[in-house]
Amino acid sequence: MSTISRRQVIAGVGGVIVGGAVATALPAMAATSNFAKTAEWIPHKVDPAIGERFGYDGYYHKGYGCCYGTFYAIVGQMAEQHGAPYKDFPFHMMEVGKSGISNWATICGALLGAASAFALFYGRKERKAMVDELFRWYEQTAFPIYKPTSDIYVDKEIPTSVSNSVLCHVSVSRWSYTTGIPAKSKVRSERCGRLTADVAKKAIEILNKKIDGKFEGLYGKQESVEYCESCHGNGKESPIAKGKQDCTPCHSGSEATENKFKDHP
Amino acid sequence: MSTISRRQVIAGVGGVIVGGAVATALPAMAATSNFAKTAEWIPHKVDPAIGERFGYDGYYHKGYGCCYGTFYAIVGQMAEQHGAPYKDFPFHMMEVGKSGISNWATICGALLGAASAFALFYGRKERKAMVDELFRWYEQTAFPIYKPTSDIYVDKEIPTSVSNSVLCHVSVSRWSYTTGIPAKSKVRSERCGRLTADVAKKAIEILNKKIDGKFEGLYGKQESVEYCESCHGNGKESPIAKGKQDCTPCHSGSEATENKFKDHP
Repeated sequence: MSTISRRQVIAGVGGVIVGGAVATALPAMAATSNFAKTAEWIPHKVDPAIGERFGYDGYYHKGYGCCYGTFYAIVGQMAEQHGAPYKDFPFHMMEVGKSGISNWATICGALLGAASAFALFYGRKERKAMVDELFRWYEQTAFPIYKPTSDIYVDKEIPTSVSNSVLCHVSVSRWSYTTGIPAKSKVRSERCGRLTADVAKKAIEILNKKIDGKFEGLYGKQESVEYCESCHGNGKESPIAKGKQDCTPCHSGSEATENKFKDHP
Repeated sequence: MSTISRRQVIAGVGGVIVGGAVATALPAMAATSNFAKTAEWIPHKVDPAIGERFGYDGYYHKGYGCCYGTFYAIVGQMAEQHGAPYKDFPFHMMEVGKSGISNWATICGALLGAASAFALFYGRKERKAMVDELFRWYEQTAFPIYKPTSDIYVDKEIPTSVSNSVLCHVSVSRWSYTTGIPAKSKVRSERCGRLTADVAKKAIEILNKKIDGKFEGLYGKQESVEYCESCHGNGKESPIAKGKQDCTPCHSGSEATENKFKDHP
């Protein structure tokens, strides 16, 4: 057992192994932290109709995209009505979720923006059912729903599809496959701008109910998750599965998941 | 064409259709926003060795998890050394990425925390190569690497695996499948705590180089992405693919993606 403390050990590492600019530029600092408590953020009810439009406009604002759009629709609305601390949030950071994080097409950024807004106000136990409701609704909904009536960026009828997935890759690629419209196109962007409006509105409805103490999730666990967890869930014979996403897009032996690297198409 | 402005239309909606508590609690507000510019955030170099330990400890701090861990390792370090504006960030919000967003196992939260920290300081064009480097490194790396030498939460040898994926579901479930250790267990949590340290350290190395004007990505586009994009990329014959994730985990007809809903196992 070591007779010197972690603080000494790591401060030593910081000073010796980390060389050059970093070591000399930084004041001596221990590698322990007290993780100072941040101020509590109090949620305010906001308007779902306004949020829908903020989401749509926010998506296009500076090209910040879907995650910024839903987050601004919620927290930006609070900022515009209530000032600090909401107005001091560095909103530009929420561009992080654009195209599922720098075009990696992981989580749908609209969902990430909404979940992040929930997380500003509620810890994980309180937030879980809110996120479950929003994400399950998303999996089963034909997007987009929103039809802007003025200041329309791409003034066309936008076809819809159900993604069965909260992942940007599945959501967008399935929509493109179904509609024949390229994944990189103005119409696809418009689809995602309107979807941002839809997610913003739904998230605000959930948040407002939560604030009123009236929130109750309507969407139960997906059948596929129920089925897979019966063997792969916690405490079962092969407890390897992590997650709550609908399992079917990747684990139902569909055409999409056949071997595409051999004899394809 | 409408003869009244969007401002009038939506203000009307806000006042009339949205009923009850929301409508009466809110001051009249238009559904247009100027999306006020937020202050620019300037990055400071931080110590990768300290960040590694902050990541590990941050993962366990209040159970906030992986996303909080990497974000705090970067922005928290700046806060502890440089004060405002870093110290005023509502760090608790970063719990959002725990278990891939409320246990949905989408993006690995450690990656989300790091990408979010990058996004505080760099717009999407500057950030793209930084995220690509971090995410591609993650896909190909056997985790965990970090071995804490003191104050160890779970003091065991932790086996490693390569996930080929930035998704929490694939990263964790493949690790559990490979090692035989349940996805819900203290050892798996320790694996993710140490992985958080690894991602924090790598992200800080990228950030420090970026600040010095010396960042250059070492990881090229994955072969699978190159191959799939040759038909499904922008401008190709079936331009439906969105994303940069390694395509093989879901599109190579592997055992994992066979039909699990029929005659399984």
